[in-house]
Amino acid sequence: MSEDKSLERLYLFDTTLRDGQQTAGVDFSVDDKITIAKTLDELGLDYVEGGYPGANPTDTNFFATPLHLSHAKMTAFGMTKRAGRSAANDPGLAQILDAEAQAVCLVAKSWDYHVDVALNISLEENLACISESVKAILERDKEAMIDCEHFFDGYKANPDYAMSCIETALEAGARWAVLCDTNGGTLPGDVYDIVTALMARFPGDKLGIHAHNDTENAVSNSLAAIDGGVRQVQGTLNGLGERCGNANMVSLIPSLLLKPGYADKYKTGIDIANLNKLKKTSLLLDDILNRTPNRHAPYVGDNAFAHKGGIHVSAVMKDPSTYEHVDPELVGNARIILVSDQAGRSNILARLESAGISVGEDNSAVERILSGIKHKELEGYSFDSAGASFELLAHEMLGTLPTYFNVQNYEVKVVWDEANPEPRATAEVSLNIDGQSVTTTGEGNGPVNALDMAIRSDLRRYAPYLTDMRLVDFKVRILNTGTGAVTRVLIESADGEGHSWRTVGVSENIVAASFQALHDSIVYKLLKEGVSPNPA
Amino acid sequence: MSEDKSLERLYLFDTTLRDGQQTAGVDFSVDDKITIAKTLDELGLDYVEGGYPGANPTDTNFFATPLHLSHAKMTAFGMTKRAGRSAANDPGLAQILDAEAQAVCLVAKSWDYHVDVALNISLEENLACISESVKAILERDKEAMIDCEHFFDGYKANPDYAMSCIETALEAGARWAVLCDTNGGTLPGDVYDIVTALMARFPGDKLGIHAHNDTENAVSNSLAAIDGGVRQVQGTLNGLGERCGNANMVSLIPSLLLKPGYADKYKTGIDIANLNKLKKTSLLLDDILNRTPNRHAPYVGDNAFAHKGGIHVSAVMKDPSTYEHVDPELVGNARIILVSDQAGRSNILARLESAGISVGEDNSAVERILSGIKHKELEGYSFDSAGASFELLAHEMLGTLPTYFNVQNYEVKVVWDEANPEPRATAEVSLNIDGQSVTTTGEGNGPVNALDMAIRSDLRRYAPYLTDMRLVDFKVRILNTGTGAVTRVLIESADGEGHSWRTVGVSENIVAASFQALHDSIVYKLLKEGVSPNPA
Repeated sequence: MSEDKSLERLYLFDTTLRDGQQTAGVDFSVDDKITIAKTLDELGLDYVEGGYPGANPTDTNFFATPLHLSHAKMTAFGMTKRAGRSAANDPGLAQILDAEAQAVCLVAKSWDYHVDVALNISLEENLACISESVKAILERDKEAMIDCEHFFDGYKANPDYAMSCIETALEAGARWAVLCDTNGGTLPGDVYDIVTALMARFPGDKLGIHAHNDTENAVSNSLAAIDGGVRQVQGTLNGLGERCGNANMVSLIPSLLLKPGYADKYKTGIDIANLNKLKKTSLLLDDILNRTPNRHAPYVGDNAFAHKGGIHVSAVMKDPSTYEHVDPELVGNARIILVSDQAGRSNILARLESAGISVGEDNSAVERILSGIKHKELEGYSFDSAGASFELLAHEMLGTLPTYFNVQNYEVKVVWDEANPEPRATAEVSLNIDGQSVTTTGEGNGPVNALDMAIRSDLRRYAPYLTDMRLVDFKVRILNTGTGAVTRVLIESADGEGHSWRTVGVSENIVAASFQALHDSIVYKLLKEGVSPNPA
Repeated sequence: MSEDKSLERLYLFDTTLRDGQQTAGVDFSVDDKITIAKTLDELGLDYVEGGYPGANPTDTNFFATPLHLSHAKMTAFGMTKRAGRSAANDPGLAQILDAEAQAVCLVAKSWDYHVDVALNISLEENLACISESVKAILERDKEAMIDCEHFFDGYKANPDYAMSCIETALEAGARWAVLCDTNGGTLPGDVYDIVTALMARFPGDKLGIHAHNDTENAVSNSLAAIDGGVRQVQGTLNGLGERCGNANMVSLIPSLLLKPGYADKYKTGIDIANLNKLKKTSLLLDDILNRTPNRHAPYVGDNAFAHKGGIHVSAVMKDPSTYEHVDPELVGNARIILVSDQAGRSNILARLESAGISVGEDNSAVERILSGIKHKELEGYSFDSAGASFELLAHEMLGTLPTYFNVQNYEVKVVWDEANPEPRATAEVSLNIDGQSVTTTGEGNGPVNALDMAIRSDLRRYAPYLTDMRLVDFKVRILNTGTGAVTRVLIESADGEGHSWRTVGVSENIVAASFQALHDSIVYKLLKEGVSPNPA
């Protein structure tokens, strides 16, 4: 946290566990919630909205136990009290107030039309619900805030009523009134204009923003609201949330901490030295949700600092700031140099260097590799997503690829029978290992799995290096090349130490393409282990 | 296109085929490029940047043939001429000018530091390169534009020089000077301020914006630039592009056409009645790239207008505008009500009706189909993209699926040998057709092809109906279901009359999954031919 007193404080409010949980297909367990809450706390968020106590068993159980966060305030979400009964006599509100949380955030209608159509109560009754609910929170010595639902649509329809909702909340003692763009349809210009107008009536740090991404402007709407004057920002990890998601905290945070216009005006609860946990935090959520991380995610995606075009690469090698808007290490990310059809010499050189392959001053070697790649790419290979196969190809072109074993032939069979409808796959592979012929067999749930089992079942002195290796991903694409349709298979393998590598195979035959990629992945592992290829 | 003369014209420039192609893992074929270019033209884009002639064989081949777009100008991309030689004597520039394109867009340095460090030429030489390159384009009677690389960083470092690049381009006769946020690190506030400052010196419609998504603000930066005064916007389908991607045209277009602040100020080349092609256009790109569409994509994602049970749903039923920022049908999308049997039922009824399957008043039939689908979807099936399999499942659940033949068992074998490295696939299938056992064999370049050949080689009286049927697409995806990884295969088949249909199979074994989809596609063809299932 910056100690510069001249900086204004911005408060970061994470709602991954509440609004994020409302997403189709998202179902956190209590343990998931605890893990995420602690991670957000360690990163330095100010508020962690943990869920809606009473709405479902998970949220109720989560709020039954105190979490002892070191920095963030645990926040319970809910609705303002129902009309027609007192706050003290509303069992829904009671569950929220009883939750183990230091802060309570209640959603309230601020669009007159919704008060009328959805709640079917008078505008005054709605204001009374806000006021009495806030007072009930304060009576429990908790921090109170009100989420003004549909604020921007409401403001356009009836600005006086929308503002009276804020006023009522703040006069009753709410710490924050949060402007929610519930339908996510407001554009940044409108957000800025409306917030600017509000600041005249509600100066200081009393307003927050809660943006949705329905026009792909949630991050920008949050920035526009800060520019206008709000001092609390709500969002979720990876932009998780209903429909198109919420404002993405993982994109917002580094912009606020690193970019001129924000870093020089505001401070948050996040220490800049802690920002390198950002990528890990983003990956944690994907891991819990069993989602493939978005390689193109701003700041934290694997490709966020990947360079492909030839000119770009030569400039980045001279000075990274030429093609990088921030230093990737600050957010826990890293630079990647890709290889591709468009690859120039400088790409190849940079990629070779990062693979530890030295070609010295031998220019013809680079030309050979480049032409090898272009030739393969015409056949349908793609090396920018198969770095291990690139390295093997480079070694092959340089004559430095060890021969650990030769595959002489293989056969794979899939059998299905009505009487036993679980299909079986078996494979037989003949290898020459260190001059000796070896025939191995394997079984699996599919042909690729059976081949994998077979080839690894008896690799003699190489076998010990492969015990911790496993297939983690397998992708197939049919391509139309100049000569007809071919199958491209990309395989991702991993070992027990958390290393992973990607290989590629191409053939008209999906089994043959898979086998090539599989073969490359094994050879790459042996190469990285530094195994000697010939018997001593 | 709106005919309202009071609206200012905004020009939309798509660079999916150029900047999008520079993305890791993206490798368009010439056919892919033609399909995408035509689709963008039909949608109403003004410019389609097709690639960089001379940079790789695909782009060179693409630009060798004229495409005859009806609305969009085909645009060739490249670099300004090299310093130290004349435009007439630059072979790289010659390839660009020779391309079959009505417009040429050349990238030029506009950050003084890059001119010095990356090009290693004087600032004046760089301006001469711009000026002479533009004149060379105009001599070929083509429209000229200059992409000012690193414009915003350059402007911050040396505003005079950055502006002199624009001035040089425009004075030489360029139709557009495009402000590129090459590193993608500029935030919307800065974009707006800088563009506003530029408009004083370059009034009218001479400036464009090319934004990248490295801070998740590419769409917003494009809007901010329009607010400031640019009248050309560059972007890509689905935000495809290097690192974190380019400005997403699929999000920008509906905001420009539908939202107050833009729709009432500007007109584009897109007819609003054409906007309902937007989702289809977005899906086309995913299909070509074999990517799973982003369910949460603004406007076009499957979840963009999805509502969960509870207040949202009842309010949406009363008045969709309560929880929808635009009408989903305008962009070719649809409302989804999640976890709601009511919505499930009407969805199923609508699909049955469009398939010509009548269930009359039988409500339990719909329940049976619904539960069959839910059960299958849990296993990994997807019927959204496999309409033929949906119809077969419905018939099965209704007891109206004819049994043309039974598969009793099959075996497929793939053999590869060092001595003969073309892999061979053979298959044997045992069938029961009209009470008779038949064993058929087939050979092919892959296991699925061999199975296809085998099953179709002797289908007795059904064979004549299948002679014109062929596989046109085959897609494989690995899914993590509750119980482990399974393979989902989607097959598209077509007949001689131009009909096509899609079927799905799911199994741990890729061959078994393929066989299911293949089997469905044959059964579907027989069903559609109205073949009688039992001997007369």
